[in-house]
Amino acid sequence: MIIDCHGHYTTAPKGLQTFRDAQLARLDDPARAPVPGDVRITDDEIRDSLEKAQLKLQRERGTDVTIFSPRASAMAHHVGDAGVSLDWARRCNDLIHRVCNLYPDNFVGVCQLPQSPGVPPSNCIEELERCVNDLGFVGCNLNPDPSGGHWTAPPLTDRYWYPFYEKMVELDVPAMVHVSSSCNPNFHATGAHYINADTTAFMQFLTADLFKDFPSLRFVIPHGGGAVPYHWGRYRGLAQDMKRPPLDELVRDNVFFDTCVYHLPGIELLLKVVPLDNVLFGSEMVGAVRGIDPETGHYFDDTKRYLDAVEWLSDSDRRTIFEGNARKVYPRINRGR
Amino acid sequence: MIIDCHGHYTTAPKGLQTFRDAQLARLDDPARAPVPGDVRITDDEIRDSLEKAQLKLQRERGTDVTIFSPRASAMAHHVGDAGVSLDWARRCNDLIHRVCNLYPDNFVGVCQLPQSPGVPPSNCIEELERCVNDLGFVGCNLNPDPSGGHWTAPPLTDRYWYPFYEKMVELDVPAMVHVSSSCNPNFHATGAHYINADTTAFMQFLTADLFKDFPSLRFVIPHGGGAVPYHWGRYRGLAQDMKRPPLDELVRDNVFFDTCVYHLPGIELLLKVVPLDNVLFGSEMVGAVRGIDPETGHYFDDTKRYLDAVEWLSDSDRRTIFEGNARKVYPRINRGR
Repeated sequence: MIIDCHGHYTTAPKGLQTFRDAQLARLDDPARAPVPGDVRITDDEIRDSLEKAQLKLQRERGTDVTIFSPRASAMAHHVGDAGVSLDWARRCNDLIHRVCNLYPDNFVGVCQLPQSPGVPPSNCIEELERCVNDLGFVGCNLNPDPSGGHWTAPPLTDRYWYPFYEKMVELDVPAMVHVSSSCNPNFHATGAHYINADTTAFMQFLTADLFKDFPSLRFVIPHGGGAVPYHWGRYRGLAQDMKRPPLDELVRDNVFFDTCVYHLPGIELLLKVVPLDNVLFGSEMVGAVRGIDPETGHYFDDTKRYLDAVEWLSDSDRRTIFEGNARKVYPRINRGR
Repeated sequence: MIIDCHGHYTTAPKGLQTFRDAQLARLDDPARAPVPGDVRITDDEIRDSLEKAQLKLQRERGTDVTIFSPRASAMAHHVGDAGVSLDWARRCNDLIHRVCNLYPDNFVGVCQLPQSPGVPPSNCIEELERCVNDLGFVGCNLNPDPSGGHWTAPPLTDRYWYPFYEKMVELDVPAMVHVSSSCNPNFHATGAHYINADTTAFMQFLTADLFKDFPSLRFVIPHGGGAVPYHWGRYRGLAQDMKRPPLDELVRDNVFFDTCVYHLPGIELLLKVVPLDNVLFGSEMVGAVRGIDPETGHYFDDTKRYLDAVEWLSDSDRRTIFEGNARKVYPRINRGR
């Protein structure tokens, strides 16, 4: 079985955006634009949106299950207040739940959280519990920067986040560290903000004792770990200079990278330096890069091809990356699968 | 000749910090702590600080010349106002000038700029002119985030920066895009802020037409280009999706990466994906990582060793990376050398 740990519902039917537009219009003028009570999307619209995109690509690429979450760039935690974020997160998560019910063999849910700048993340516990306990989700996307590029929240290693981590541990679910869109003109969302957040989170983990406090807390750092594998020597050296544990030890049970790196040399580097037990197959499909690479004739984000091309991986290595690590990091996948 | 394009005077004699401490104390209490008129450092102190560090390492590693600038993390443009930044930049640059006069064969100067949050960078023109015309410097370090991790300045492609770029073009000097220390607790300086800034700057260049306006403007993105080479496929794909020029064309005459990547797999990746005409040898010595890699028995930042180990580089390739590109990007080096 091939499990893609990183997919977003970027092709959701337009009824979702209609709801969001109405919600945002209400922010500007509460009197004139009441939020519609429901997201109006039919099952057929959902099927259509997936059959010609994610499901088609799963079939073409030979992958089986996608760990599926709402569109990351649309989380936009910096817009409105915690109430707006909660209403939006619930609609998005409910839609993912419908996807998983329609295609239980193809998708497993991961939730968006109702984060909001300046609001302690304990406000997200209830939605996490609902998604995991009631909807059968297996993890969450945690935004280290709900301000959308102004980086006003405390680092992920701060006790500010601990109540939420306690619930993650209790439910045995991991978080993918995933920012949303950027409202800082310095940061292009998918080209800078996403990658910077990955790098930033890793360095936060490196410099603190978070995993002594939470030995079973697990994070997936997406987009191949940002800049980290490319600078693995720098991070090994910084850890050594700062008398921190070696990186292999730091990441072992707690920090994992996906394979959303869109060229073979990058994937080869990732697999050379990061322990294979800490790498999860992922493609970010359909996501940041949608075109076909003229150098290969294949989609940039068809990351399975790059992994297939790495000759020195054993069959056992491949099972670890394609399936075993996902089952280990997201153990709730194993319920009924 | 082997030219290291990235060295900072991180080992400056303590007289420099004494001046800075007095300057900062005055910020807190102007009445009690007047700034000393001079940085009190003897030539022997300068010699001692270099002989046992940068010069020793140059000799041991077999490099010849270092393009040398004040300590980047100490620029701290976010501290005080533009007057404080100017006073501090001048002292730091004058000290680099003394280094270059004492060891003209070993060092060539690059200047710190008197940037300050909210102050248009045209305030830096005079100091750039002084350093280039009077002190013989060959370039500058330009901080894309004088706020120190809050990213409040406009992107590097904004017209805000154009008057300064006009002077760079007139003087025919490049800038290394280099942030300073971080006062945002999310960003570890050398482990996150530096690398994020590199990635951020590249994506800014990718999304705008800056080099149409300034065809001869040149930037060196340090630390191996941040995350960019590792995600070269992502950036190629983003450029294609956004109908921007191919990356090779984007970078050709304007954007260059150094080799401050502290392990062989990273260096191999850099050289595989980035055109060799856009790679300048650099080590950041003595810089962010000071230890010896237990896996190799050599200093992490001895980047010449990694380049020497890449067997598929031709002699001509090596001359390009070690010398030719530096002479091309910093043409003032060629005066008398």
